[in-house]
Amino acid sequence: MFKFSKLAAIGLSAVVLAGTAVAQTKPEDAIAFRQAGYKFMAWNTTRIKMNLEGQYNKDEVIQAANAIQAIANSGMGKLYLPGTDKGKGFHDTKVKPELFTDKEGVGKVGKAFNEAANEMAKVAATGDQAAVKEQFGKLGQSCKGCHEKFKVDDKK
Amino acid sequence: MFKFSKLAAIGLSAVVLAGTAVAQTKPEDAIAFRQAGYKFMAWNTTRIKMNLEGQYNKDEVIQAANAIQAIANSGMGKLYLPGTDKGKGFHDTKVKPELFTDKEGVGKVGKAFNEAANEMAKVAATGDQAAVKEQFGKLGQSCKGCHEKFKVDDKK
Repeated sequence: MFKFSKLAAIGLSAVVLAGTAVAQTKPEDAIAFRQAGYKFMAWNTTRIKMNLEGQYNKDEVIQAANAIQAIANSGMGKLYLPGTDKGKGFHDTKVKPELFTDKEGVGKVGKAFNEAANEMAKVAATGDQAAVKEQFGKLGQSCKGCHEKFKVDDKK
Repeated sequence: MFKFSKLAAIGLSAVVLAGTAVAQTKPEDAIAFRQAGYKFMAWNTTRIKMNLEGQYNKDEVIQAANAIQAIANSGMGKLYLPGTDKGKGFHDTKVKPELFTDKEGVGKVGKAFNEAANEMAKVAATGDQAAVKEQFGKLGQSCKGCHEKFKVDDKK
């Protein structure tokens, strides 16, 4: 399994220190790429939920948890390039300006999310449905932790 | 590392045999979810390419290859639900109708892609740049293998 939580957490807070490979990415592409990552994770959280509520398929939960883990650890923070606080990828970005200034806050929620995603994959592999349910709740909290601070609430 | 190539290949050809968890997914969501998966993989193939062409960062290539691997093995085939041969997710689907009928052909390109993605992650972990370059070429061929048969060529 992956051991990139530290790396990824650094990636998520290294908004300014984007590497050469990412510096060449166009703002609209960077926004679309991060939206794609979140959307694909949304599919996978949805199906873990459906498995917990319906017929439990261990293999599917493992596939879903592994996808979430790998995306969480992919260093998506690099996609928050300067100039991507506004703009359109697949749709208008919902990022709050605070994400680009609150380095410490971003690092904190990023780390919590990475840890929860790594643990989710670990627990999914056991097939212990009760443990999966518990960890899934924690994963959801870690998503929420970032959304509340750094994502525009479009329900308002 | 993951060992789901067989499972995922089955998933990719099991267009008709969608599980209960996916059967509840709305067509427009299924299309958006698969577009998200491909888009996120596109980011990751792009940055492997950039690393090969510019300054090579072993950790970033590992992150990228692991993300591609986990998405490849996530069972995305389940998102090709009946009724999703046409329709809009983030944009109009580019799938050809053949994907829903050519079970054998889909299984073949799916298997080739999963194997290439698994090998890509394995090679990335070694940090051997020449080997990464070679395997990256093979991964690209496996993407192309599916695109040529089952994706509408929007360059035409």
